[in-house]
Amino acid sequence: MGTILLGGSIMMFFNIPSILIVVGGTIASTMIAYPLADIMSIFKSGMKVFIFKIEQPEDIIANLVEISNKARKGGLLSIEGDIQTTPDPYLAQALQMTVDGVKTGDIAAIMQKKMALTKKKLDLGSDMFSSMGSYAPAFGMIGTLIGLVQMLANLDDPSSIGPKMAVAMITTFYGAVMANLFFIPMADKLTGRADLEITNMNIIFEGIISIREGEHPKLMEDKLKVYLAGGKGKEEEKK
Amino acid sequence: MGTILLGGSIMMFFNIPSILIVVGGTIASTMIAYPLADIMSIFKSGMKVFIFKIEQPEDIIANLVEISNKARKGGLLSIEGDIQTTPDPYLAQALQMTVDGVKTGDIAAIMQKKMALTKKKLDLGSDMFSSMGSYAPAFGMIGTLIGLVQMLANLDDPSSIGPKMAVAMITTFYGAVMANLFFIPMADKLTGRADLEITNMNIIFEGIISIREGEHPKLMEDKLKVYLAGGKGKEEEKK
Amino acid sequence: MGTILLGGSIMMFFNIPSILIVVGGTIASTMIAYPLADIMSIFKSGMKVFIFKIEQPEDIIANLVEISNKARKGGLLSIEGDIQTTPDPYLAQALQMTVDGVKTGDIAAIMQKKMALTKKKLDLGSDMFSSMGSYAPAFGMIGTLIGLVQMLANLDDPSSIGPKMAVAMITTFYGAVMANLFFIPMADKLTGRADLEITNMNIIFEGIISIREGEHPKLMEDKLKVYLAGGKGKEEEKK
Amino acid sequence: MGTILLGGSIMMFFNIPSILIVVGGTIASTMIAYPLADIMSIFKSGMKVFIFKIEQPEDIIANLVEISNKARKGGLLSIEGDIQTTPDPYLAQALQMTVDGVKTGDIAAIMQKKMALTKKKLDLGSDMFSSMGSYAPAFGMIGTLIGLVQMLANLDDPSSIGPKMAVAMITTFYGAVMANLFFIPMADKLTGRADLEITNMNIIFEGIISIREGEHPKLMEDKLKVYLAGGKGKEEEKK
Amino acid sequence: MGTILLGGSIMMFFNIPSILIVVGGTIASTMIAYPLADIMSIFKSGMKVFIFKIEQPEDIIANLVEISNKARKGGLLSIEGDIQTTPDPYLAQALQMTVDGVKTGDIAAIMQKKMALTKKKLDLGSDMFSSMGSYAPAFGMIGTLIGLVQMLANLDDPSSIGPKMAVAMITTFYGAVMANLFFIPMADKLTGRADLEITNMNIIFEGIISIREGEHPKLMEDKLKVYLAGGKGKEEEKK
Repeated sequence: MGTILLGGSIMMFFNIPSILIVVGGTIASTMIAYPLADIMSIFKSGMKVFIFKIEQPEDIIANLVEISNKARKGGLLSIEGDIQTTPDPYLAQALQMTVDGVKTGDIAAIMQKKMALTKKKLDLGSDMFSSMGSYAPAFGMIGTLIGLVQMLANLDDPSSIGPKMAVAMITTFYGAVMANLFFIPMADKLTGRADLEITNMNIIFEGIISIREGEHPKLMEDKLKVYLAGGKGKEEEKK
Repeated sequence: MGTILLGGSIMMFFNIPSILIVVGGTIASTMIAYPLADIMSIFKSGMKVFIFKIEQPEDIIANLVEISNKARKGGLLSIEGDIQTTPDPYLAQALQMTVDGVKTGDIAAIMQKKMALTKKKLDLGSDMFSSMGSYAPAFGMIGTLIGLVQMLANLDDPSSIGPKMAVAMITTFYGAVMANLFFIPMADKLTGRADLEITNMNIIFEGIISIREGEHPKLMEDKLKVYLAGGKGKEEEKK
Repeated sequence: MGTILLGGSIMMFFNIPSILIVVGGTIASTMIAYPLADIMSIFKSGMKVFIFKIEQPEDIIANLVEISNKARKGGLLSIEGDIQTTPDPYLAQALQMTVDGVKTGDIAAIMQKKMALTKKKLDLGSDMFSSMGSYAPAFGMIGTLIGLVQMLANLDDPSSIGPKMAVAMITTFYGAVMANLFFIPMADKLTGRADLEITNMNIIFEGIISIREGEHPKLMEDKLKVYLAGGKGKEEEKK
Repeated sequence: MGTILLGGSIMMFFNIPSILIVVGGTIASTMIAYPLADIMSIFKSGMKVFIFKIEQPEDIIANLVEISNKARKGGLLSIEGDIQTTPDPYLAQALQMTVDGVKTGDIAAIMQKKMALTKKKLDLGSDMFSSMGSYAPAFGMIGTLIGLVQMLANLDDPSSIGPKMAVAMITTFYGAVMANLFFIPMADKLTGRADLEITNMNIIFEGIISIREGEHPKLMEDKLKVYLAGGKGKEEEKK
Repeated sequence: MGTILLGGSIMMFFNIPSILIVVGGTIASTMIAYPLADIMSIFKSGMKVFIFKIEQPEDIIANLVEISNKARKGGLLSIEGDIQTTPDPYLAQALQMTVDGVKTGDIAAIMQKKMALTKKKLDLGSDMFSSMGSYAPAFGMIGTLIGLVQMLANLDDPSSIGPKMAVAMITTFYGAVMANLFFIPMADKLTGRADLEITNMNIIFEGIISIREGEHPKLMEDKLKVYLAGGKGKEEEKK
């Protein structure tokens, strides 16, 4: 868009070798730095972030309150059915342990370790995009250097200097666009998403502990709603 | 101002396509990185920072001392009226819990969790402006590269090189100004504001615990005034 | 000095519009980022750092030992006179609490909170200079871009290109000098000074607790001298 | 590859003095910053990372379960044979202490200290590659400056300017390639590998404590499998 | 070396005003940022790092085992002689306290505070070199700007442009070399050295506590050898 606005032709900005240098270099460096399996799974889950919305804390709390009510009336065993219908494996395993009568301390320990490991895995995702966001402009500059060296070594035809330099600069352009329009925002996105996921896991964690301890559903709801207030902001909360 | 001083015409620095690249690119990257709802609410609260002054710690302490005196004379129930008149929802909820006779430990736990969640939300604001402060100059450079590539590809008319390069450079100029005169200072501003808000919440936290525990209002005041001393600085405090 | 050595005239480096852009831009950004009152007080205390030397730990320890001896002989009340003559409000308040018979735990809590708040305030100072150290070169570059754009838009007179570019570059020069010869070293300076102040406050803290607890002055002196050894370095300590 | 695609000859990018400046300078700075023995061992273990795959957590858990079963049936002494056949010295020492009947607390203390020291050593590796990743482009730029200064000092023959500048720029090219295609990805790689190694050590740590305490092998397996779930990701875990 | 390889004369790179700007500017900024006494002592101890090797952990452990054996046979008083012969003041003071019968808790508190203070002092050293590593290239660029401004202001004689620009660029060259071949590697070096010194202090700390508590020398040796295994690396340890 910007290009058209500035009055140029888009084809001017399409250059296969430049794309190969920036994309190829970035992929090469990323494959040295990260195992292939990790790269694939991070890209896949990176894409999912845009397709699937994260479960809303409100819904999670409503679900937990419902389960808590059921457990209060019918005993812990009555929530066994929810284990199968729960799509979230974290909640499912926590419910299973609750039904199995695992001690509160052990449930807490396992749930917290899972949270820590999930956090680590999510951080890996934004670290990788962050690295790619620094590799891409570097290879953009490398491509421009290649173009400049070739141009400078053959200055015989002055009329070719301009177009050759234009081509050399396109590589820097590619690197900058890829980094700033994709990799770096993706890293920020995944960091934000990780925060939301960990908050959700924290809500489930506190809810399950509350259910296991047999707290009143209303009390549990009050405690969990603190998370919503924090999310909606101090000012709005009172209205 | 600087422009006029340097003897140029301001219109020279007004270029629609350049503005579109920098502003559009920055908005695009920000929308990839952050949910739209967050972006809107951060901008709104960012603007509020300049319009509404934060409540002074002195006033908060005076208010708490007053409430403490009332509670001492008329019992905890006598402060029920303050809950409605308190504009700050954090203080209002804390008072409500105090009146309801919630245990000190539970009040403390909920208030501290709210503080932590507020801190997280405020940090998100300065993180977002910080990100925008790095996107803007990047798109400034990207726009300049677009302009240079177009210019270099058509060097036929030497007399047009200068003006074309001037236009190309304006995009870098826009990115640098937006980042350094708005986004980065805003990030610093919100960081500072967050500090003040958390300090205020800490004062309220300690005050409410003190009221709940039935401490003498004078003792509470002495404890809370430590926050003022820290704010005014070590040297001035004695005068 | 460098200019003269390189054989140029100093007047060549004096350009009012450039100064206005760099200084004005830096001040504008700083005023967006920080409250005016904070900016003034930080500059004032920044200047004081060069005029007033910080109290030496040796003197503080000697003073505390003297007070401890007095308290041991004449009781805690005998040190009441020192409260008036002590120029340091931190020590004065601590002595006052000691004379008033405040419990050790409460004294410790208040003194540590004061230390934490002082640390925060001192950090704000070096953060602000650090921010200014990044604003200044940015506005230097912005000024140079303004100059270049104006020059490029009017390339008619080739003989004026050189001088115009020289003027444009001076703005970058101003930004770099201001940042590297003033703002960034000041930020480092204030960080170092904050360390020394907090160390002094720690010495006073431990000394007062020791006096309150009625420890033998000699034992207190031995404990506090650890701070001196750390300051003088491991090697020198034994001589 | 990129070079060929851009239509140049590869020989154009081969320049002995440039290589010597970048490689020599990077080595020199690294040798000032790190002891020679460390540099050698880091490079050696850096290479091993690509040749030897790290042991899979699944295999470690399976192995620990087997040992646990053996210990349950034949007593702690029956696992003495595993000490000799275990290739991992960390596990071997832990088993030895278990067989020797060292107290659980002491085993834990020693194993955790070993973990902390291993983490420190692994961090040193990625720190070193990180440093080299900043030295290399710096010496690339230094080499280019050398070339430019020489070229600028002798501008008599205009036809030689281009080739001389081309040679000067190759040094920047070398520095950028070395940093972005080797040093920086290696630093990222070693950081990731360190994470995996520490996770493995954590699994062994928990497994050994479980064996020493005589927990049921099935219970131990359940606890350790949390690490696998975290590794495979929350979503996949349930299938 | 690089210069000669690139075929230039070394004298071309020797320029007194450029050296004065970079060295003078770096010194000036450093003196603003750090007290003179600190600068001197850091440079002195920075040089010592290359002359004196740090004591090997193996030797420290051997020494502690010997002292422990002596104390076991002849009582704590029998180690009084070692206090005089010990060159390390940290160990000497710890031994003195042990002989004097100071309580274990008090010895531990003093030794840990000394460690923390030593760490702080060592960190100051690498912070200072780190700062100098950012001042030097900045003044290199400032010097180049001075040269360029002077050149651009007098473009009358085209034949002098090249040499003048060459001289201007030398200043950037100086700054980059000083930073990357001296200041930054020195900062890395001091960070690494600090790690080793703190490890040694930790070994002495644990050894002294063990001696004070009357642990068996063999047990102490086993515990301390964990530090050696960490140093030599996991793989080598078993051979």
